[in-house]
Amino acid sequence: MKIARVEGEAVSTIKHATLDGQRLLMVQPLTPEGKDEGVPEIAVDTVGAGIGERVLVTQEGRAAEELTGHTNPPVRTLIVGIIDSIEAGGETVFAKNES
Amino acid sequence: MKIARVEGEAVSTIKHATLDGQRLLMVQPLTPEGKDEGVPEIAVDTVGAGIGERVLVTQEGRAAEELTGHTNPPVRTLIVGIIDSIEAGGETVFAKNES
Amino acid sequence: MKIARVEGEAVSTIKHATLDGQRLLMVQPLTPEGKDEGVPEIAVDTVGAGIGERVLVTQEGRAAEELTGHTNPPVRTLIVGIIDSIEAGGETVFAKNES
Amino acid sequence: MKIARVEGEAVSTIKHATLDGQRLLMVQPLTPEGKDEGVPEIAVDTVGAGIGERVLVTQEGRAAEELTGHTNPPVRTLIVGIIDSIEAGGETVFAKNES
Amino acid sequence: MKIARVEGEAVSTIKHATLDGQRLLMVQPLTPEGKDEGVPEIAVDTVGAGIGERVLVTQEGRAAEELTGHTNPPVRTLIVGIIDSIEAGGETVFAKNES
Repeated sequence: MKIARVEGEAVSTIKHATLDGQRLLMVQPLTPEGKDEGVPEIAVDTVGAGIGERVLVTQEGRAAEELTGHTNPPVRTLIVGIIDSIEAGGETVFAKNES
Repeated sequence: MKIARVEGEAVSTIKHATLDGQRLLMVQPLTPEGKDEGVPEIAVDTVGAGIGERVLVTQEGRAAEELTGHTNPPVRTLIVGIIDSIEAGGETVFAKNES
Repeated sequence: MKIARVEGEAVSTIKHATLDGQRLLMVQPLTPEGKDEGVPEIAVDTVGAGIGERVLVTQEGRAAEELTGHTNPPVRTLIVGIIDSIEAGGETVFAKNES
Repeated sequence: MKIARVEGEAVSTIKHATLDGQRLLMVQPLTPEGKDEGVPEIAVDTVGAGIGERVLVTQEGRAAEELTGHTNPPVRTLIVGIIDSIEAGGETVFAKNES
Repeated sequence: MKIARVEGEAVSTIKHATLDGQRLLMVQPLTPEGKDEGVPEIAVDTVGAGIGERVLVTQEGRAAEELTGHTNPPVRTLIVGIIDSIEAGGETVFAKNES
């Protein structure tokens, strides 16, 4: 799973049914120290992440719905966790601000 | 999911049955600011996207059809949304022209 | 799905059962304009593609066979279409020779 | 499967149910000789790996749970083995310290 | 599927059950002409490949076992064929030594 920072939000009116009612956030993949790594992606939020938060991003698995429908649903990129802190080499390389 | 711009269309007469009757669009992956990022791909259109539009692109999931047939269907790249706007850092980094 | 050009053929006598009787073609991924992009792969031909032809390449999905066997079959790279033409920006950036 | 070194640990309180009770380790992908290769990822530990250990990392497959639930579970990155040694070209390019 | 050369072997005592009793080979991805391309991976041998042999490498599909168990098995990288020869542009760019 990738570490990323929530950078913004995308709006899409005309979209596939599997994206209906979903919040689409723009996420920038990062190194553990917080440097940009590669290009932002659009992810479906499953945890209520806010702009600026450090999050865990992955792809979703394949689904039960696939067994009942006639078509293959698209695979969505998902935000699956809000990161509180990352420890490495005995140091805290990231800690969420709680002010 | 990647952000991309619809650049053109591909025509293929001899193709796998899962591509029959599908519109094949050439899409260029982009940064949120609209710069080219990597190489164009060919995607199946599921939303009626037009040339020049900003879209969301993903892979399709695995399918019910797989449970009824004798072979593994290929995985298609799909256009799953037309992007109206992208907000980041309090600014609108992309807005679809509505003129 | 990637655009690629059929470059050659690979021969393998000792192979997994899912590759038995399959034609294994070497395909070079391309930009829409036909420049090499990355490293050639080995793909199973599903459409009768010939050397030099421009093709669509993807991975296969997951399968019915998986529900009947005891092991996970490997995922094969597939040629799923022969490209006749690609239009972009009002121009034909690729057209198959029909001489 | 990739070779990686366990570098640290991530803490996430608000997360998807599939990550509940899981130990989230930060892993740095490596060459066989132990040089960093690419960017660290967050992986779920399935073997009790410790900080500094050389491990095998992969994605998980698709699941039984998918057939019983209503949504597609996210795909987790997994640590699936602790590497004791790697031999190449008649030499031991990596051996775990047992002091 | 990628072309690779078997470079060595990895030993792992503590590992996920899906790797039990499996031979873990280190494989270096190659161009068709045999130049190194990217970083070596660890693959499960399904064809009895030997050190120095040119092989076909892929990921495994999703499985029947997934329908009977309670967890998602990890996805293993597999060696699925030993390459005898590769022809391109009317020339043999690789032929296995049979001395």
